[in-house]
Amino acid sequence: MPLRYADAATEAYAFPLTIRHLLKTALATASAERIVYRDQASYSYGDFVGRVGRLASMLQSIGADQGMTVAVMDWDSHRYLEAYFAIPMMGAVLQTVNVRMPVPQIAFTLQKAQAEILLVHRDFFPIVEAVRSELPGLKAVIAIADGVAIDTPAWAVGEYEAMSSLASPDYPFEDLDENAIATTFFTTGTTGDPKGVCFTHRQLVLHTLALAGQFGAARVTAAIGMGDVYMPLTPMFHVHAWGVPYLATMLGLKQVYPGRYEPALLCRLRVEHGVTYSHCVSTILEMLLQAAEATRTDLAGWKITVGAAALPRQLCAKARALGMEIGTGYGMSETGPLIARTGPLSPEEWDDEEATLTALTLAGMPAPLVEMMIVDEEMKPLPHDGEARGELMLRAPWLTPGYVDSDGASAELWRGGWLHTQDIASIDSQGRLRIRDRLKDVIKTGGEWIDSILLEELVATAEGVADAAVIAVPDERWNERPLAVIIATPGAVPTLEAINAPVLRAITRGQITKYAKLGRFEIVAELPRTSVGKIDKKRLRAMFAA
Amino acid sequence: MPLRYADAATEAYAFPLTIRHLLKTALATASAERIVYRDQASYSYGDFVGRVGRLASMLQSIGADQGMTVAVMDWDSHRYLEAYFAIPMMGAVLQTVNVRMPVPQIAFTLQKAQAEILLVHRDFFPIVEAVRSELPGLKAVIAIADGVAIDTPAWAVGEYEAMSSLASPDYPFEDLDENAIATTFFTTGTTGDPKGVCFTHRQLVLHTLALAGQFGAARVTAAIGMGDVYMPLTPMFHVHAWGVPYLATMLGLKQVYPGRYEPALLCRLRVEHGVTYSHCVSTILEMLLQAAEATRTDLAGWKITVGAAALPRQLCAKARALGMEIGTGYGMSETGPLIARTGPLSPEEWDDEEATLTALTLAGMPAPLVEMMIVDEEMKPLPHDGEARGELMLRAPWLTPGYVDSDGASAELWRGGWLHTQDIASIDSQGRLRIRDRLKDVIKTGGEWIDSILLEELVATAEGVADAAVIAVPDERWNERPLAVIIATPGAVPTLEAINAPVLRAITRGQITKYAKLGRFEIVAELPRTSVGKIDKKRLRAMFAA
Repeated sequence: MPLRYADAATEAYAFPLTIRHLLKTALATASAERIVYRDQASYSYGDFVGRVGRLASMLQSIGADQGMTVAVMDWDSHRYLEAYFAIPMMGAVLQTVNVRMPVPQIAFTLQKAQAEILLVHRDFFPIVEAVRSELPGLKAVIAIADGVAIDTPAWAVGEYEAMSSLASPDYPFEDLDENAIATTFFTTGTTGDPKGVCFTHRQLVLHTLALAGQFGAARVTAAIGMGDVYMPLTPMFHVHAWGVPYLATMLGLKQVYPGRYEPALLCRLRVEHGVTYSHCVSTILEMLLQAAEATRTDLAGWKITVGAAALPRQLCAKARALGMEIGTGYGMSETGPLIARTGPLSPEEWDDEEATLTALTLAGMPAPLVEMMIVDEEMKPLPHDGEARGELMLRAPWLTPGYVDSDGASAELWRGGWLHTQDIASIDSQGRLRIRDRLKDVIKTGGEWIDSILLEELVATAEGVADAAVIAVPDERWNERPLAVIIATPGAVPTLEAINAPVLRAITRGQITKYAKLGRFEIVAELPRTSVGKIDKKRLRAMFAA
Repeated sequence: MPLRYADAATEAYAFPLTIRHLLKTALATASAERIVYRDQASYSYGDFVGRVGRLASMLQSIGADQGMTVAVMDWDSHRYLEAYFAIPMMGAVLQTVNVRMPVPQIAFTLQKAQAEILLVHRDFFPIVEAVRSELPGLKAVIAIADGVAIDTPAWAVGEYEAMSSLASPDYPFEDLDENAIATTFFTTGTTGDPKGVCFTHRQLVLHTLALAGQFGAARVTAAIGMGDVYMPLTPMFHVHAWGVPYLATMLGLKQVYPGRYEPALLCRLRVEHGVTYSHCVSTILEMLLQAAEATRTDLAGWKITVGAAALPRQLCAKARALGMEIGTGYGMSETGPLIARTGPLSPEEWDDEEATLTALTLAGMPAPLVEMMIVDEEMKPLPHDGEARGELMLRAPWLTPGYVDSDGASAELWRGGWLHTQDIASIDSQGRLRIRDRLKDVIKTGGEWIDSILLEELVATAEGVADAAVIAVPDERWNERPLAVIIATPGAVPTLEAINAPVLRAITRGQITKYAKLGRFEIVAELPRTSVGKIDKKRLRAMFAA
């Protein structure tokens, strides 16, 4: 028999899952909170809605239309939040441009996304001047003066605030197909050209609901909720600042946008506005701790979700000692990004700081509706026993359906109907995910895989070592051997013996294979990083393993 | 320009929002909790999944197919939970039968829903025997012995547990269209034939996510979450027990199903299993408090959401004095039911017990994605100022798209693209909803509407009054006048003066119009109620206002 369908009333409202409805929720609950940008702007949710309408009106006045890509190059601001809503709500596609990419790559991504309108902060005018001749499709640029009196460049149609003040707040937003693309941006990864991912209205609404559910009912650590004051510390160009601005807006929270990340300012905003929830990568957390020490800022009670790369245990311990509430998350550009967060810890885990640190530095529990499995090289599922490790495969309602204009990579991403993360993970009997390695960073030696992330953590605790990365170097006898690339602590001259000491202890404890013992290391002044702050192992391999 | 759509990879998984995925979430997080039924059953989530497969297999073996309606008549049980999943997951439609309806109405609803298979608890065998001759479409009945040795009736194809034990746990569930109907049931209301509502897979998944988000990030009072032990106290036939079994399963919580509600047993289950979250109507809460007193059961810490009808202030105060955490909710059969719950209270509200009671007995804040407005008789929106009152209109992704086989009523329900609740409400400047009256119970007198719910509350506090209802009676001069129908406290002989005393005080305080002063009252031994426990004003009007 066929499936049964409802005999719907002609006028029944077929509620589409669109971004406009997230904003309507904030209005329905009549938030009295404010949205703040540095020392420059502070307005109510009512004003925010008006400014979202103004942005749409001004974009329309310069030719923006449904299906058109509107790109943004800005620091984290109230303007960016306005763009998060106005651009998708009018049926256009918001491209969040990674301003830290090399200039030619920025031009590449604007071309690939077919950006026709660009909103650009004055700090990035030189980039626009350098690349605009290569962008024949770019029809209009809006300059963002950001509170400073500047001459609007001749190539711009106007200045954001000036145009906003003249535009109508009453843009007639209409319902859209929930499967239309809302946002796109490019992930750099560490190999090849940047790859464009995209997300539909439906996907972003479901991501927001799942985030609310996981932060809420699932009782994860460092959870945002009603009463919190939110400040992003992951750039808004990067995977929608992990989707939290949409959630914070839906909940009607007070939001603080910090502009360019300046450590002393971040500390001041935290105190002035009583910020209680942020999210960032571990390098930003490290920077925050240093800035807080320098400015004597009290960090107690600040909830922070750390993601993008493994959270070092010592950093977690240090933040906790200052009274911060730390959780970790796992996700990637292709996943929207929500996949997992550190779930509720057992009382036994909370009772023992070492067990707490172990649990908090895992990647966590899957969010509602996330399906995950680990597989071997033939895509055969492996057991969830905490030991077996294989490539993590995902399904969720908000994963990118493919890469922009890049069919080969799209097919590879979704081979077999599961999203291939290229992360090597284990999953324990409680469903907790642990990321062990990147597929391409795996070190195979003596017939075994070495957990390079764990090996890096161990080396980082060695005497005289400030930071460490481990890469594979070819080896005739062993196939590959691990090589540690380290930054020495000031004045220290670390030896191979010292560096191996924590590794040998871990071998004795059975934590890591005996093949992990290092035969070689290199000292560098700085570890090369990608534009999103991950250690660039491709460059390390080019430097030391070629 | 047309909207932009993603260039999806051929193998990209188009994740449908289906009930199967709620169950998969429970498995992904590897819940170690148990599902309990009275003293009769206790099993793991792994076993639950096997039993869901078995139920699907046994239904298939007797001819169940996609699109077919499978009806259930049972008390709240693990079996019912199995049916919540297995029946929609196989593409069939689960009909939850209101076993408290008069027998002819039960037959009517089975006919209307085109039920072809029926699962029936032995307590309801007499009903089946009485009506099965009127149900030519009914192809097979499965009898539920519920732990007692009985002879399976000749009209049944077998007994639930016996069939389950022989069936395969590995039913090949497949992905379904998320817009297929998953559940249907009939709402009695107080007028006319029962009306069938239905909900799709997509709607139930979104309802579950919104519930998780509201219970969580929105910090409502009496919220369920990880670590809670759940026991429903709203029948599972009634609006999916408010959708909480789906949420509790998705979260992998320990769940306790109490069977037929027996007060002493409920208290024992609460203690034995450490139940921390339930939901019910106020009459059940009242019954619980009495049973707890009789059995000396400690109720402290038990979180309860009260809904379906206004929570009397005194009952809320009594429960709070015993250490219970009380919240209220608003919804109706047509809405799935989630619409609103008491939101986070301000510190000032928590500091003052009277203010706390006022806030807790409101209907609350709208859930994520719920849009609401109040309108006058021309459907013109009224201000959200806490004063203006009009019919509450709703939109949300999970409202029934219409009534089963009842087009006129469907069109009326959705007139103008909004769901008409027939509830008169006000919404304050903070977005908080207060239900004032039922549209059809409104009393219009002297050109003003009297808030009959408030008037009932006032009368109920009068000396000598145990319970009260207020209805309109026709009046030549005033159009309508209020009439109080009361139950006297044992031994009391209340006077009109005594009954009017709290009303007059409220008039003096400006809480209610002066036209609310009563000119007449009637004493009854019992207030007539509908099958879901609401006061049946239609019958009262027939008795006193005809």
